[in-house]
Amino acid sequence: MRRGGARQEVEARGHLVDSFILARIFGAIMDADGDFEVSEMRVGRRKGDQSYARLLVRGRSRRHLDRILNTVYRAGATPMQQGEAALRAAPRDMVMPDGFYCTTNNRTQVFSGGAWMDVGRMMMDKCIAVSGGAARCVPVRDVKKGDMIVVGEAGVRVAPPEKPREGGGVFEFMASSSSSERPTRQMARRVAADMLRTEAAGGRIVLVGGPAIVHTGAADAVAWMVGKGHVGGLLAGNALAVHDIENATRGTSLGMSARDGTPAPHGHRNHMEAINQVFRAGSIREMVASGQLKKGIMYQCVRRGVPFALAGSIRDDGPLPDVVADVTEAQRRYRDVLDGAGMVLMVSTMLHSIAVGNMIPADVKVVVVDISQPAVTKLMDRGTRQALGIVTDVGAFLPMVAEELRRAGPGARRPGGGAGRRGGRARGGRGGAAFRA
Amino acid sequence: MRRGGARQEVEARGHLVDSFILARIFGAIMDADGDFEVSEMRVGRRKGDQSYARLLVRGRSRRHLDRILNTVYRAGATPMQQGEAALRAAPRDMVMPDGFYCTTNNRTQVFSGGAWMDVGRMMMDKCIAVSGGAARCVPVRDVKKGDMIVVGEAGVRVAPPEKPREGGGVFEFMASSSSSERPTRQMARRVAADMLRTEAAGGRIVLVGGPAIVHTGAADAVAWMVGKGHVGGLLAGNALAVHDIENATRGTSLGMSARDGTPAPHGHRNHMEAINQVFRAGSIREMVASGQLKKGIMYQCVRRGVPFALAGSIRDDGPLPDVVADVTEAQRRYRDVLDGAGMVLMVSTMLHSIAVGNMIPADVKVVVVDISQPAVTKLMDRGTRQALGIVTDVGAFLPMVAEELRRAGPGARRPGGGAGRRGGRARGGRGGAAFRA
Amino acid sequence: MRRGGARQEVEARGHLVDSFILARIFGAIMDADGDFEVSEMRVGRRKGDQSYARLLVRGRSRRHLDRILNTVYRAGATPMQQGEAALRAAPRDMVMPDGFYCTTNNRTQVFSGGAWMDVGRMMMDKCIAVSGGAARCVPVRDVKKGDMIVVGEAGVRVAPPEKPREGGGVFEFMASSSSSERPTRQMARRVAADMLRTEAAGGRIVLVGGPAIVHTGAADAVAWMVGKGHVGGLLAGNALAVHDIENATRGTSLGMSARDGTPAPHGHRNHMEAINQVFRAGSIREMVASGQLKKGIMYQCVRRGVPFALAGSIRDDGPLPDVVADVTEAQRRYRDVLDGAGMVLMVSTMLHSIAVGNMIPADVKVVVVDISQPAVTKLMDRGTRQALGIVTDVGAFLPMVAEELRRAGPGARRPGGGAGRRGGRARGGRGGAAFRA
Amino acid sequence: MRRGGARQEVEARGHLVDSFILARIFGAIMDADGDFEVSEMRVGRRKGDQSYARLLVRGRSRRHLDRILNTVYRAGATPMQQGEAALRAAPRDMVMPDGFYCTTNNRTQVFSGGAWMDVGRMMMDKCIAVSGGAARCVPVRDVKKGDMIVVGEAGVRVAPPEKPREGGGVFEFMASSSSSERPTRQMARRVAADMLRTEAAGGRIVLVGGPAIVHTGAADAVAWMVGKGHVGGLLAGNALAVHDIENATRGTSLGMSARDGTPAPHGHRNHMEAINQVFRAGSIREMVASGQLKKGIMYQCVRRGVPFALAGSIRDDGPLPDVVADVTEAQRRYRDVLDGAGMVLMVSTMLHSIAVGNMIPADVKVVVVDISQPAVTKLMDRGTRQALGIVTDVGAFLPMVAEELRRAGPGARRPGGGAGRRGGRARGGRGGAAFRA
Repeated sequence: MRRGGARQEVEARGHLVDSFILARIFGAIMDADGDFEVSEMRVGRRKGDQSYARLLVRGRSRRHLDRILNTVYRAGATPMQQGEAALRAAPRDMVMPDGFYCTTNNRTQVFSGGAWMDVGRMMMDKCIAVSGGAARCVPVRDVKKGDMIVVGEAGVRVAPPEKPREGGGVFEFMASSSSSERPTRQMARRVAADMLRTEAAGGRIVLVGGPAIVHTGAADAVAWMVGKGHVGGLLAGNALAVHDIENATRGTSLGMSARDGTPAPHGHRNHMEAINQVFRAGSIREMVASGQLKKGIMYQCVRRGVPFALAGSIRDDGPLPDVVADVTEAQRRYRDVLDGAGMVLMVSTMLHSIAVGNMIPADVKVVVVDISQPAVTKLMDRGTRQALGIVTDVGAFLPMVAEELRRAGPGARRPGGGAGRRGGRARGGRGGAAFRA
Repeated sequence: MRRGGARQEVEARGHLVDSFILARIFGAIMDADGDFEVSEMRVGRRKGDQSYARLLVRGRSRRHLDRILNTVYRAGATPMQQGEAALRAAPRDMVMPDGFYCTTNNRTQVFSGGAWMDVGRMMMDKCIAVSGGAARCVPVRDVKKGDMIVVGEAGVRVAPPEKPREGGGVFEFMASSSSSERPTRQMARRVAADMLRTEAAGGRIVLVGGPAIVHTGAADAVAWMVGKGHVGGLLAGNALAVHDIENATRGTSLGMSARDGTPAPHGHRNHMEAINQVFRAGSIREMVASGQLKKGIMYQCVRRGVPFALAGSIRDDGPLPDVVADVTEAQRRYRDVLDGAGMVLMVSTMLHSIAVGNMIPADVKVVVVDISQPAVTKLMDRGTRQALGIVTDVGAFLPMVAEELRRAGPGARRPGGGAGRRGGRARGGRGGAAFRA
Repeated sequence: MRRGGARQEVEARGHLVDSFILARIFGAIMDADGDFEVSEMRVGRRKGDQSYARLLVRGRSRRHLDRILNTVYRAGATPMQQGEAALRAAPRDMVMPDGFYCTTNNRTQVFSGGAWMDVGRMMMDKCIAVSGGAARCVPVRDVKKGDMIVVGEAGVRVAPPEKPREGGGVFEFMASSSSSERPTRQMARRVAADMLRTEAAGGRIVLVGGPAIVHTGAADAVAWMVGKGHVGGLLAGNALAVHDIENATRGTSLGMSARDGTPAPHGHRNHMEAINQVFRAGSIREMVASGQLKKGIMYQCVRRGVPFALAGSIRDDGPLPDVVADVTEAQRRYRDVLDGAGMVLMVSTMLHSIAVGNMIPADVKVVVVDISQPAVTKLMDRGTRQALGIVTDVGAFLPMVAEELRRAGPGARRPGGGAGRRGGRARGGRGGAAFRA
Repeated sequence: MRRGGARQEVEARGHLVDSFILARIFGAIMDADGDFEVSEMRVGRRKGDQSYARLLVRGRSRRHLDRILNTVYRAGATPMQQGEAALRAAPRDMVMPDGFYCTTNNRTQVFSGGAWMDVGRMMMDKCIAVSGGAARCVPVRDVKKGDMIVVGEAGVRVAPPEKPREGGGVFEFMASSSSSERPTRQMARRVAADMLRTEAAGGRIVLVGGPAIVHTGAADAVAWMVGKGHVGGLLAGNALAVHDIENATRGTSLGMSARDGTPAPHGHRNHMEAINQVFRAGSIREMVASGQLKKGIMYQCVRRGVPFALAGSIRDDGPLPDVVADVTEAQRRYRDVLDGAGMVLMVSTMLHSIAVGNMIPADVKVVVVDISQPAVTKLMDRGTRQALGIVTDVGAFLPMVAEELRRAGPGARRPGGGAGRRGGRARGGRGGAAFRA
């Protein structure tokens, strides 16, 4: 270890070894060309026990040390003596003070007023505002002049997510290999099991979906999932809603007949007619209320009261009156739907998936389903590292998941079922075709 | 040919054979299970001559025939006796009348008031409004109550784009093979040649770009192109601007040093700091005016007065104050920048590329550059069939294009050069490194 | 048209317009910078009628004209006065004479001895040997000293494949769009329909498959297809056979349990043990004979006497004793299995698919199924232009195809069924699970 | 910890924490549903120090424990008391004894005759033969009757590769992100630096390459690298050699002129003519000797005496006389060229890359360059986990690497240069164009 320079003692606690936390801390120091000494190390003697480590970190200078500590803290270590987090007032609306603390998507605490407080609604790349004994994560456009914003790294503690080892779920199943060489049916079964486990634990499942759900023929399976309560929130764009409504009202998707797959007469214009019909009715809800929309994903959302948010994008046709054309407002609506989500299923839409990845804490389960492997990888590279990618054809995979849910779900075991599930029971008896009715 | 049924005589004119127009018309009839007889056929005797064909089309019933004719007209044929286009008033704001004509992106004419009139600002999947002797293409959200909208297929004439055969360009070069097995340097040379030819013909080149331009190290090359006048309009989202400004002010992209590629101290927060700096300045233009932004793509756009439009999206960090958060308004700005474009270069952004594809007529040259082959294919499947896809690494390809522009460009030939090009001449002498300064 | 230069009159016959043949001929002339005049043009007056065209082609010089004609002949035109094909003796074994005619994969005829003769076993990029009044396509390594080989382009007539328009099949269905946005179930139904139509016409279906069939869990579905006579030939490499046998004897694929998808004890070595077991038995056939192999794809091939050929490759583990390690010999075996094939199904193996693409005439139906879109595109770029690509997850798609075959197949209609199909009837009754038994 | 059951004490030594070795051991135990207690743990106090851990592992039964230990040993732990490895004679040629130890690609030792001995020529999925005090890795087809083969897991020690932290290379650079969002120029510089570092350490660099090197226009850059001694071995298939020779002798690749990218007259047949020319000469070496081949990759290999091996495959045209048609023999040649390699550069060929990945120990540096991200991922999934993937366009990237080598290489520093480098020095002066001469 270098003589001279600056030093700081830090500690870490948790499943340091098997969750790679210690490896990440050591790596962070070495990547930053720092030096360290292990002052104390207690490894949990048994599976499930926590470990503890204390390190002395050294840098060439105070500045160098600060740079090292910056990454070390983000990897999960904390200084031995914790000081108060520094706060500075936002100079103007939508302007953060210099040196603002830039958040990760990990669970984070702030030491302020002599106590640790959890940061609410954790998101990536935002700042933290403290007021009235509470800390919350704030996007730049929501910053108000005078908000007290955390600056610097002191007084902030980050808990990197620990490796889940609950067993049986798709996360453990997939851990060490590429999904494109795993048995598809098994993956569907695991995803269904994770959904049911999330539901059993009281967690809400949010579906983030693109129009390929409809184009590939999975709309009925998804509508069934929504109708059965397996989807507790829907986040999408204009296209999913348009094509779902085209499919529900005209029996076509991209102008092709959903029944026999041939080009329908005047099919090319069907999605524009569907858009026009919604404008004429006023909104999707009014289409449902007036009996013009009687099936499909959007119908089931309205019928069941499942919250949904449709975000506008530059490539939209229309967009529908229900689409939030202002993206800043759409982000707010998305965050509301995501609040308290236990699991997020992202299907065939990189745009909305990356958006959602930025909005959720790192300990929310994320499953990404896409025909394109790079789409899956990209999301993880963007920081949603907890995401599990399944490279498959959604038109075949989602009906499989729905089928597994039906087989394994409560309805399959409890003959009575609840009101909301009764219709489904009857349909369930007809086998896989239930999702295609 | 069936006896009975309904019949209609149609005609077509143009490079019917080598532009596949006739093949498409025949195919359309057969796909719709119709029948036809060639009443007259005059093939242009020499290369460059137009051809003429007259067909008698038959269907099983009037309804069947109408369905056939619908596709036949869209493939480029017109009925022998042209009637007036039917017009109907829009019943409300943002609601098109039933049976509205749904546009293609091909050049289109409407027969109204006894004469053919061109439809202005042609776009895909819109309607056509006629007023004051002029026809224009109108998105649904811009429809006003009472607008006279074309309904039905009668009185509408479509000119499918003819196969370009001018020679020397990338379009001819690539015609029959996958780009990933073509010499990269040659493709760069051809794209540069097409750009120069477009410029020479007075056409404006619009660049549609994603942040990978910056991440892969092509920002200097693109900034050079803008600075030299090779880019006459920029369409992008928040991310391109953020990362360009991060790169220009902090020397990093995604937190990695652009100089030596290592993680910069505190690099992860640099893009958030860049965003905050723009909010503090008020806008990108004000950053340039105040001397805080002195290089890069956005700087060159401001300096040269190149129009740009940044469209908001649900995944934006910030977004920057310059970003148009309302997507409907962003579409209007995009259309303004695209007005009169002679060539569109789409680089590493599927979202904005599909958006632009929907907004431009089919006779505007489109080159798509992306590392992902499916991204390229998808655009063409969405109707932007004129697009030419180049599967390559933009970080290597765009600097090559810039180098070829420099070598082949006017500056290379005319020692004097114009005012706008003078600086470039001097830099040009320093070789390829010019784009990396 | 240029004065001077050289000229040649050519003619073409067939569905010149809707099969794009004429468009290709015109294009070929223009691409080669040639000139032409249409001397005569008779378009078939009705759907199904053939057309006829006569052109006068001109070049700047005899040499230029020859270059143009070279491409024109390959596009399907023939000279008005047909001369004898020139023949020259091969100077040595495995050496073709200078100027040898290099074949396409289109149906080809040679004019020799005053008559046209079909070239047997048409393949791409080979030469043509004429002897005893017959012409056959010969790979370079099979050329023997003294073989009389066609040289030059004269006396050779090529028939480009015409666009199939039979209706109902997947080829028509997919014609104009990307498969990844089509309903998966519909595509499976269409593929099954094409298979049944091929069988009904007496055609044999050859499956070219990679190990992903096993890894993704589709082995049972494929074994069922083989067992039911839906696959009349299997072309693969070492890996498909190894993993199928691992799956059949140990219940794992890549060491993962096929039943519940978890890593099996010692699973990593299972494929090596499977290989060792085959070596111990002597061959796959001997494993079946001795009762050690009782299920799976290879088992069904042996049981039904379905011919198969396993080609060695540099990446093989083992390879199995049944694998033909010499690739030249393996090519011969492949050609034998392909002889007379009416349809080829290529699944998840680019290596073997490209190999087969080079070996089959252009009028054999080819369906390519792969999770990767570029894999599908690459095959078409290599000259197998008749191929239809379906981008999907084979682990989900092939069971769907099998289910559709079962539903739509002869067994479903004819209660009696043939001997070979009886067992299947019984299993068929148990529903989709039949493929998973 | 469970009472009863079976137990075994194991130990591990090395960079246990920052190389994830301990995390992997813990994970292996938990994945196998085992239990453990940390008996002793000494963490290296400083960067660079080794750590030591001793664990007591328990299973429900001896059988369960053996299953756990199997994976624990493979993760790098060893039993406290090491016994002799069990040996059993191979019962027949090409048949391994039951229970044979199935190798990983990690450095491995066998305890036999009371001492540890290194296993020579380490490869994945082979067995280990011991004779005359030496152990070597043997493929199944090379097993001879009576060979003494290691069976069971006892007496075998595996050293998982430690995380390289030398700094400056592409491996560190890329560690945490997807290459497609990294600056291309930087990546080329890092690859060149790694090559030069390998050379400086006396390591040989082996290039594994596909024909896309030629098609994308990188043949000159690669030929320059070979000519300058930067490539010490070439592993490829038939296609690379054919297209390189087509390019060198006819100036075309896939029939397109390399100079101006247009289709060359008769271009489609050029690669078949190139093949015929090699057959006529007898071999590539004879073509060089007779002056018929004067440039290109294969020419430089012959001129410099760089060893190469061309493996046959089922899709080969020809294949060339130099191609080893028997894949088992080709594997032997590949292994000879790879013997002692310090770094392997894999470019655009999944087939040969996976083959090589199976043949090299896990501590050989591997860089994979491909336009397709899944191709890169697949290699890592197959066990070549040390591979670093760069998703780029080889036609642009390899010339960049060659340019960086030229700038940074010995020639740039030592004006004299060696005999083999003299010609290159002169060319080097002409700048980037040197690779394109």
